Amino acid sequence: MAAEGLAALLLSTEPEIRWFSGFLTQFWQSPTRPWFLVVPARGKPVAVIPGIGAECMGRTWIEDIRTWSAPDPEDDGVGLLAAALSEHAGTGAIGLPMGPETHLRMPLNDFERLRAALPSTEFRDATGLIRALRRIKSEAEIDKIRFAAQAASSAFTRVPDILAPGMTETDAFRAFKIAALEAGLDDVAYLVGAARSGGYGDIISPPADRPLTQGDVLILDIGGVHDGYYCDFDRNFAVGAVGDAVHRAHETVWQATEAGLAAARPGATCADLFRTMQTAMGGDAEPNVGRLGHGLGMQLTEHPSLTPWDQTVLEPGLVLTLEPGMEISPGKLIVHEENIVVRNGPPELLTVRAPREMPVIG
Amino acid sequence: MAAEGLAALLLSTEPEIRWFSGFLTQFWQSPTRPWFLVVPARGKPVAVIPGIGAECMGRTWIEDIRTWSAPDPEDDGVGLLAAALSEHAGTGAIGLPMGPETHLRMPLNDFERLRAALPSTEFRDATGLIRALRRIKSEAEIDKIRFAAQAASSAFTRVPDILAPGMTETDAFRAFKIAALEAGLDDVAYLVGAARSGGYGDIISPPADRPLTQGDVLILDIGGVHDGYYCDFDRNFAVGAVGDAVHRAHETVWQATEAGLAAARPGATCADLFRTMQTAMGGDAEPNVGRLGHGLGMQLTEHPSLTPWDQTVLEPGLVLTLEPGMEISPGKLIVHEENIVVRNGPPELLTVRAPREMPVIG
Repeated sequence: MAAEGLAALLLSTEPEIRWFSGFLTQFWQSPTRPWFLVVPARGKPVAVIPGIGAECMGRTWIEDIRTWSAPDPEDDGVGLLAAALSEHAGTGAIGLPMGPETHLRMPLNDFERLRAALPSTEFRDATGLIRALRRIKSEAEIDKIRFAAQAASSAFTRVPDILAPGMTETDAFRAFKIAALEAGLDDVAYLVGAARSGGYGDIISPPADRPLTQGDVLILDIGGVHDGYYCDFDRNFAVGAVGDAVHRAHETVWQATEAGLAAARPGATCADLFRTMQTAMGGDAEPNVGRLGHGLGMQLTEHPSLTPWDQTVLEPGLVLTLEPGMEISPGKLIVHEENIVVRNGPPELLTVRAPREMPVIG
Repeated sequence: MAAEGLAALLLSTEPEIRWFSGFLTQFWQSPTRPWFLVVPARGKPVAVIPGIGAECMGRTWIEDIRTWSAPDPEDDGVGLLAAALSEHAGTGAIGLPMGPETHLRMPLNDFERLRAALPSTEFRDATGLIRALRRIKSEAEIDKIRFAAQAASSAFTRVPDILAPGMTETDAFRAFKIAALEAGLDDVAYLVGAARSGGYGDIISPPADRPLTQGDVLILDIGGVHDGYYCDFDRNFAVGAVGDAVHRAHETVWQATEAGLAAARPGATCADLFRTMQTAMGGDAEPNVGRLGHGLGMQLTEHPSLTPWDQTVLEPGLVLTLEPGMEISPGKLIVHEENIVVRNGPPELLTVRAPREMPVIG
């Protein structure tokens, strides 16, 4: 912050506030109330939050907790926030995330009110600063991600036993979610996928009421949560017999992951890792997905991105997904994914490595 | 839009884009990519979205889908978006949500780039317009909320059988989530609560590793999802024998809900409903929560709010939570909640009414 000339950071989103404070609650699902954390360049952070969260925030290391009875149509925390910023930053510059993968979680009208209340204050982009802090995970953070990844891996091994041809995608997703909870996850915050003959059309859809059908390729892509940390990976299954083209494509993305695992060493860049996996797929990365993996932690996807343009250098403690995907035939995809942490030497696989041959359902 | 002089709406958040388009995906969990929907005053909406979502959006009624390969550090959709707005709105005013309970889900830097690309365009607050559209639910929407509320109600009846003293809160929450999925919910997107002797300290916390203990009052507050629509209600349980003060407080909030059910008629206001329930609790509404209920639908909480200041008039089709809460003793809360839809005549209860006596665990 000193190097960037910032007197304080202003945070409004769940992962940023949690990273600095430890404040963990699903209450963020409710859009009604804004929440703020002020991190001054000197001194301890100040939480400016709705009264409903005072007790929960009081269990974190934050001591200075200022509350109002929200929602309040006259002043939904802006006055308190302006006072806290003014007290800790004077007229110094305030950093907040304004760059890629960020947003401001407060009404735009209230942000204008805040600016009007602090007319001499400059608001500057602090995306790079916060990214750099969050990018490398502590061993405590890695333990949580590993737990989530191992629990989800364990649930995936049960899929051939709990799913069967004829079951709808909706029921199959529900059965897998139950298996994932039984394996020890706190939540399955994210489960997308599809089952289609010869490969699926996209990888972000909710389940359809269509039954699993002989010849389908089923993908389940899970964002499983343990103590506020995510795993994010997928597995592919053959419903009965699938064609040779599918098996060949699965072998290709599995081998692309092997290449990624071999290349994920400190000093390599994200772009290097992208190119390694793309080359292993014969240059045929699926362009619509836009990348072949990403950071992982308190969020399902985090900076950095495995793309041709991301020059972020791999360092020990960086947690990544390797996610090579390709088209089997026009409009028919196959995507594979593992979660790793960069170590000195070979990376540590946080997931249980996918079987080289697709498991068969039915 | 004509009355407000708007040439187009610009939407960037999940529920707004879904309400206008039908686009349903959990992919919003990933913060990486922005998504936009332009709703012109004349003509059909235009989706400006990452390529990864083209297939999923293509299954909605939206025909004009413009994509880019996101993430793109050079231009993450801003150029495409500016062109779509310019084409459909010319230099007319663009409405976007800027008011309470809203935020802009795109990087602030990109919003500045958009404004710079459209220097003659005025951006105006359209919160009221969008609220008014979303407030009254169709019967199809009500069916989904009812399904979620009934499934969660069914799971709650199993709680005395599946929870027991000595089980940790963490394990109890997981067991209840499994029961809720087994009852037919797609997801348990939200489950908060606590168990403490004589009442709980707050209602937004994740479960602790503390065991359920004789004398505890346990609250489970579920946001259960069916086809993208939420129920949101809680139930209280006595772990073994709890004191008379707890039983009296439960009776009070149960009766306050009865009073709310009797008062929820077309023509009454949200403020009327607040006062009715507050009076039934002897004027002792818990102030930190800030309200005694709220709207419900595609989001866990929606406009309006049951507060002294919300003059929104109840109309048939308005789905609400009634959520009276009070302090049993200093720092010890009890909160009760039901989901209703306002009808001509008495409201329809979407949840199965809570038993008047708290069910007992163990």
